[in-house]
Amino acid sequence: MRRDVVIIGAGPAGLLLAHLLKAEGIDCVVLERQTGPYVLSRIRAGVLEQVTVGLMERLGLDARMKAEGLPHDGFNLADGERLIRIDIKALTGKQVMVYGQTELTRDLMEAAAPRGVEVIYEAANVALHEVAGDAPYVTYTKDGAEQRVEARFVIGCDGFHGPSRKAVPASVARSFERVYPFGWLGILADVPPCNHELIYANHDRGFALASQRSNTRSRYYIDVPVTAKVEDWSDERIWDELSVRLGPEAAAHITRGPSIEKSIAPLRSFVFEPMRYGSLLLCGDSAHIVPPTGAKGLNLAASDVHYAAEALTAFFKKNDNDRVAAYSETALARVWKAERFSWSLTKLMHRFPEDGEFERRIQMAELDYIASSEAAQRSIAENYVGLPL
Amino acid sequence: MRRDVVIIGAGPAGLLLAHLLKAEGIDCVVLERQTGPYVLSRIRAGVLEQVTVGLMERLGLDARMKAEGLPHDGFNLADGERLIRIDIKALTGKQVMVYGQTELTRDLMEAAAPRGVEVIYEAANVALHEVAGDAPYVTYTKDGAEQRVEARFVIGCDGFHGPSRKAVPASVARSFERVYPFGWLGILADVPPCNHELIYANHDRGFALASQRSNTRSRYYIDVPVTAKVEDWSDERIWDELSVRLGPEAAAHITRGPSIEKSIAPLRSFVFEPMRYGSLLLCGDSAHIVPPTGAKGLNLAASDVHYAAEALTAFFKKNDNDRVAAYSETALARVWKAERFSWSLTKLMHRFPEDGEFERRIQMAELDYIASSEAAQRSIAENYVGLPL
Repeated sequence: MRRDVVIIGAGPAGLLLAHLLKAEGIDCVVLERQTGPYVLSRIRAGVLEQVTVGLMERLGLDARMKAEGLPHDGFNLADGERLIRIDIKALTGKQVMVYGQTELTRDLMEAAAPRGVEVIYEAANVALHEVAGDAPYVTYTKDGAEQRVEARFVIGCDGFHGPSRKAVPASVARSFERVYPFGWLGILADVPPCNHELIYANHDRGFALASQRSNTRSRYYIDVPVTAKVEDWSDERIWDELSVRLGPEAAAHITRGPSIEKSIAPLRSFVFEPMRYGSLLLCGDSAHIVPPTGAKGLNLAASDVHYAAEALTAFFKKNDNDRVAAYSETALARVWKAERFSWSLTKLMHRFPEDGEFERRIQMAELDYIASSEAAQRSIAENYVGLPL
Repeated sequence: MRRDVVIIGAGPAGLLLAHLLKAEGIDCVVLERQTGPYVLSRIRAGVLEQVTVGLMERLGLDARMKAEGLPHDGFNLADGERLIRIDIKALTGKQVMVYGQTELTRDLMEAAAPRGVEVIYEAANVALHEVAGDAPYVTYTKDGAEQRVEARFVIGCDGFHGPSRKAVPASVARSFERVYPFGWLGILADVPPCNHELIYANHDRGFALASQRSNTRSRYYIDVPVTAKVEDWSDERIWDELSVRLGPEAAAHITRGPSIEKSIAPLRSFVFEPMRYGSLLLCGDSAHIVPPTGAKGLNLAASDVHYAAEALTAFFKKNDNDRVAAYSETALARVWKAERFSWSLTKLMHRFPEDGEFERRIQMAELDYIASSEAAQRSIAENYVGLPL
């Protein structure tokens, strides 16, 4: 088979890009190793920047998001005592949308067939070939049979563990990584959230995040040592810890309930360069990982997809190769700024084993400064809603 | 002898406080271990915040500063390539004043006798007694004779190594410290500065600062390992290094000349709590040290002195003890914010041995973000000119 573009991975990045290309009449296919239900079963982030919301609007796939999503005008930082509200609407004129990544993926997935977006699930052993030149192809196994797709471009939307990044030769590649000495223990429960907005807390006992998927489904996190085991954390123990770390104001409104999902996620910062090699473009987690603090992961994938769609559209519709040539540099400029924000919010809100009491006081002084400075709040807010494309 | 207040240390903090108290008719004496010329020989910072300038204005001691000092509307961050100008005047409505600490001290020193501000130089073996209660006294040796001053308050303006801080019992004290793995090698030369404003540079080879005392006297710094020795750094080697680290634009305007002073200063963050114990108040370096990045040391001493003068005036003129009681908390709130700023600018502009390539890119991304964001620039500018009292 032959397509203009073959996209590897049917997560939100791959599906979003496929819809955008399809809308431009660019012929593409998406290859996904897993089944659709499996893809939807992965619990992920749930705070969308304007850029991400805007792409769904452009596709006309925003109806359910607008009906069920929760637009937020602000969020809170907490120091164990008080809440410091960052009024993102007043400071930037923008909002964020609380809408689960799972829901966004479902919307894209359900619209695929009606719109003729071709997705091949359970495509095993996906391998990229000849991406250095202008006639790449991808092979995979489907129902036991070897398949081959030839294309002008291959787009890697296959996450951190997918094969795309590995198709870039080590001789031209550089990667940058930081692994954090803790993980986030998350609990999902069908209880109303303790606050109508998110709360990021830095308590003497550690980090906590009060988040939400809807008005009846809450998502909470605490940080735990990387060696911690989920089975050591009963629901009650997590609720107890949240009640302390989030501070008295939030704790008073916590509704406890049985977990419907509970897991520990490691925190990692990772950037791979370049994001384009020959005819291969990388989008999202295949090229970079951020720690979840600030919820930039999905949004950064969406901005990569935006740049990739623009570049491919220019290529196929205007015979203009410049944007493809500039893709890596363009995408990385925004990636690194988001990496910086995620790293700095992680540094501000977590206790690091190597840090002493001086660094602890510096964190408290920074929160105190933020509480007192509109400029500091505006800087945080503009990063939180997403820097300009 | 008996005074309302005895001030230990005739550096800028002690002299400033003595003038402020004298102007309120509060009886005080300053004890200084060294001679006046020795105090003036110490080469220190040279960028004054509005708060510091304002205190000199209030005392009517600003004439020479206004005539010879250089008001600056901005300063620059550099990444080895470009200059990122922080327009502090446009962003905050305020300026800073480039005027050597030595000059400010000289103005205060020369005005002392005419205004009846009593300073006793070469007061040896200064010791504090009974500061826990309300009848403290200080002993010292002058010309071989033991002396004693009784006072209602003792103010420690005697720097990091002075005796005042040590008079606070360890049982009530806490200190917070961070020592940095590099020092600043400074060179003072009678050559015109390479730029009319300061440049803080983070180059692959390390940190550099282009500063100035006047239009004909320049002060430059580079960071060196703590183990470096001045004798290994010829003037030429320093000029060569500056020409690389400051980036091409600044380097083109460097005028080289023989050093008139050359030394390596260690970098340290240090905070001592509390800043008041009984009848003892600590001001400036006796209670806290900042790394020189951002030039907060003298300015922080000046804001301590401002709070101390207000507190002592309220005590002696209005019989109001509340401000004295609140002095430590009031001063520390501003101290910790300045410690945070100095630490964060140090982190942004220096390479740390423990940091890898990820952290290096994060620094570059932060400079890139600052270059693109008015909010980020405003936050830096408001810290640079000094947060509100």
